[in-house]
Amino acid sequence: MTTTVIYKVYHHPLCPFSRKLRIVLLEKGIAAQLHTERPWERRPEYLALNPFGTTPALQYKQGKVLASNYALFEFLEEAYPQLNLLGQSNEMRGITRSVTDWFDNKFYNEVSRYLIAEKIIKVLTHGGAPNSEAIRAAKNNILYHIDYLDYLLQAHRYLVDDRVTLADFAAAAQLSVLDYIGDIPWQRKKRVKEWYALIKSRPSFRPLLMDSVPPLTPPPHYANPDF
Amino acid sequence: MTTTVIYKVYHHPLCPFSRKLRIVLLEKGIAAQLHTERPWERRPEYLALNPFGTTPALQYKQGKVLASNYALFEFLEEAYPQLNLLGQSNEMRGITRSVTDWFDNKFYNEVSRYLIAEKIIKVLTHGGAPNSEAIRAAKNNILYHIDYLDYLLQAHRYLVDDRVTLADFAAAAQLSVLDYIGDIPWQRKKRVKEWYALIKSRPSFRPLLMDSVPPLTPPPHYANPDF
Repeated sequence: MTTTVIYKVYHHPLCPFSRKLRIVLLEKGIAAQLHTERPWERRPEYLALNPFGTTPALQYKQGKVLASNYALFEFLEEAYPQLNLLGQSNEMRGITRSVTDWFDNKFYNEVSRYLIAEKIIKVLTHGGAPNSEAIRAAKNNILYHIDYLDYLLQAHRYLVDDRVTLADFAAAAQLSVLDYIGDIPWQRKKRVKEWYALIKSRPSFRPLLMDSVPPLTPPPHYANPDF
Repeated sequence: MTTTVIYKVYHHPLCPFSRKLRIVLLEKGIAAQLHTERPWERRPEYLALNPFGTTPALQYKQGKVLASNYALFEFLEEAYPQLNLLGQSNEMRGITRSVTDWFDNKFYNEVSRYLIAEKIIKVLTHGGAPNSEAIRAAKNNILYHIDYLDYLLQAHRYLVDDRVTLADFAAAAQLSVLDYIGDIPWQRKKRVKEWYALIKSRPSFRPLLMDSVPPLTPPPHYANPDF
């Protein structure tokens, strides 16, 4: 497959939505140049390009980006349909998008948002002591999300089907960031751990396992697909 | 147009995402039965049907709903493409989805979420005194969103094009809820007021202007398209 457009991706290695984008680009075989952005710095040139101010942003032509998580995955799905990540039927596509939304929004807002703010951004910006109450709430919330993953995996090999979909990449991208800081209780559900090991062993996931964001260091099992 | 499926929609009259769905169903000519749900009551039967617990939910077959705002609009767009609300080109569809996401997520999280929690849900549930600091922050945030609407409207008659798209309905749905409680500073930008008057005069918007949620009463201009 030859690609004439070279996309530029503004990302942060420990941003779950950036990770989801990096996985999908590799799964679909789309060439892209990565540029690391620290969105909390609110760089004026970045805000001018991307009024959302968030990562990731996909530059698809000079001076034009898509920065909405929703918009950019639908864009890639429409532009590169050879690998269909949503499913064939209208109903299946609806279910895939619902589960994707669950992890992109519900899981992020109940779990990742807090742990990223308190245990990643505060460390990287010397932002003071973490709020232990926020961390405790997030670690409590993650339990029912792991149970929900386990429930979904009772019916199929992957989250919504026997083949991998966008929902798996959305969920695994969130989990992988929290795994980097050692915050996933993998012992809770064997089936969830096995599913994650399967995703982790995909070539598209490999670059994420090589990410290094000092002074944060991942636990030894982080990069090991057979953990 | 004949529709064999009759959808059931679980909605709340002052939920902006429910309003967006009601507008799109009417625009596309899709028949649906409306059922009022108060999501803060966390009715067990509703949670069993819809694990998100939020409104709206679109029941598309017995016992099956789509409750993700993202998933259900893409579902309707795929199932009823006769009226295309996203645009023709891949780029235009990306822009429509980005602006839709801006209002569904950024505007909601920075403005509507607070005003709905403090000035609507607390009144309906006798939930105590509103948090005046949250209200002040939301009313401050709304100003730059109105300026962003004005900026978008400099280039076209509607938010992303000279014809109406999903982005207009997403934005107008949010604004209409806040207009019901008198919280839109319409005098700030003439162009934004004119655009909203245009949306407000559409037949699909009419049922929203008839909504009544006592003891909350809208200001006199609320139901007047020529306000």
